[in-house]
Amino acid sequence: MSRQKLFENILEKKSFLCIGLDSDITRIPKHLLDKEDPIFEFNKAIIDATKDLCVAYKPNTAFYEALGPSGMISFQKTVEYIPKNIMVLADAKRGDIGNTSRLYAKSFFEYYNVDALTVAPYMGSDSVKPFLEYENKWVIILGLTSNQGSQDFQHLVVGENETLHERVLKTCSTYGTTDQIMFVIGATQSDYIKKIRSIVPDHFFLVPGVGAQGGSLEDVCETGLNDKVGLLVNSSRGIIFASDKEDFANAARAKASELQIKMEAILKNNNII
Amino acid sequence: MSRQKLFENILEKKSFLCIGLDSDITRIPKHLLDKEDPIFEFNKAIIDATKDLCVAYKPNTAFYEALGPSGMISFQKTVEYIPKNIMVLADAKRGDIGNTSRLYAKSFFEYYNVDALTVAPYMGSDSVKPFLEYENKWVIILGLTSNQGSQDFQHLVVGENETLHERVLKTCSTYGTTDQIMFVIGATQSDYIKKIRSIVPDHFFLVPGVGAQGGSLEDVCETGLNDKVGLLVNSSRGIIFASDKEDFANAARAKASELQIKMEAILKNNNII
Repeated sequence: MSRQKLFENILEKKSFLCIGLDSDITRIPKHLLDKEDPIFEFNKAIIDATKDLCVAYKPNTAFYEALGPSGMISFQKTVEYIPKNIMVLADAKRGDIGNTSRLYAKSFFEYYNVDALTVAPYMGSDSVKPFLEYENKWVIILGLTSNQGSQDFQHLVVGENETLHERVLKTCSTYGTTDQIMFVIGATQSDYIKKIRSIVPDHFFLVPGVGAQGGSLEDVCETGLNDKVGLLVNSSRGIIFASDKEDFANAARAKASELQIKMEAILKNNNII
Repeated sequence: MSRQKLFENILEKKSFLCIGLDSDITRIPKHLLDKEDPIFEFNKAIIDATKDLCVAYKPNTAFYEALGPSGMISFQKTVEYIPKNIMVLADAKRGDIGNTSRLYAKSFFEYYNVDALTVAPYMGSDSVKPFLEYENKWVIILGLTSNQGSQDFQHLVVGENETLHERVLKTCSTYGTTDQIMFVIGATQSDYIKKIRSIVPDHFFLVPGVGAQGGSLEDVCETGLNDKVGLLVNSSRGIIFASDKEDFANAARAKASELQIKMEAILKNNNII
């Protein structure tokens, strides 16, 4: 999907919501466990209940890999079930030497045919570039992550007035275009988003950490929005595990709707819609 | 497997060789392609031909994931086929927020039951620590990688006389013990290994990059060996793709044997055996 198409979808749905399909087999409603493919049944119900409210779904591959090869079949069925006008971001945080990253690109962009893949930056250019050889596919590079461990390295000073995550944004933005590269910027890091936005003014950010992790949608938007929105704000557990009963899909819809309504107000307040 | 047991295996086999099972479906001998599971048949033959010469096998998950769920079945069968006294290192370069890394740990240490997993350090402590909760399992953290892109970030100066990869080694070595953590140190980076060894004197290093990538076994050993050897030197393509004909397993054995003989000489010259 192109950046222009993504922007149009956001305008149409009045939403820049991404729903994280972190479909943990130990947390999905118990009544689904006697189905043939409980994870897929869960995802299917969540997608049916929320697809008019979001512009992207983000299955984190760990939750599928934990179940072995059959989990990857659930992943595949989920990706195929998502309507084509909604982006699928595989949150896999891959990255290896060029020769090997090419195979990950083949896996995610050819076999599973997702729209975007999260990638770790530590190994540098040749670990990222193979993913950029696919038209209308995206890499989403870890910039400043939402977790506590982001303190260990991402804020290290690496130059005059420059931290590691800032250098990562600068260097990685030279690997490709704003139609190919997004960055992961955690919602819990809103103090840093103003500076980050000045470094990469035009890139989309995938923003996890709203909800269960404690980040604030409003704080992120205050300095993170650009004139093409430039944000995909993700919520996973806060939406998909809103209820563990038979009403789980409706409960997920209610939570997604709360966020969509807030997003619509933000888009209006910023004269984007 | 414990560090002591790994050391004993090295003494017994006079080898610290790790063989990378980067079993690319497009490069394995053509006569295997009409088998039911060509990748597993290839790996099985390589393992049968080399298992007395190495102390570890390192399947890189990208080559299995590229084939979708069926590739992960080949991966699983391969892991199960490797004799129990030989370490299995899953080269997967995973890492995510704690909640999610726990699922990767479940995947690799419970479902597939490998001995060790490579992990990227960018997300810091909570992305690594869930892997350390398993007894006799290892995380192998990217330190200084063998590829060209390692220049982009890993050599950045982050403090007085300190580079990013040095800080990663120092910080990550506090996450757990030398019986739980190894580091990836590329063979192409032999100029830096003396200093790296002084920072983490007791840790095992997984050393890729000998062979196809141009690193030298002798250069790595000159400053990288410690009194418990402390090195697992990996060769992948240089061994497993030594021939693409029906003699591929014998050709792989010949290449592995060349390295084992060199390693035996190095161990003797250093009075380790």
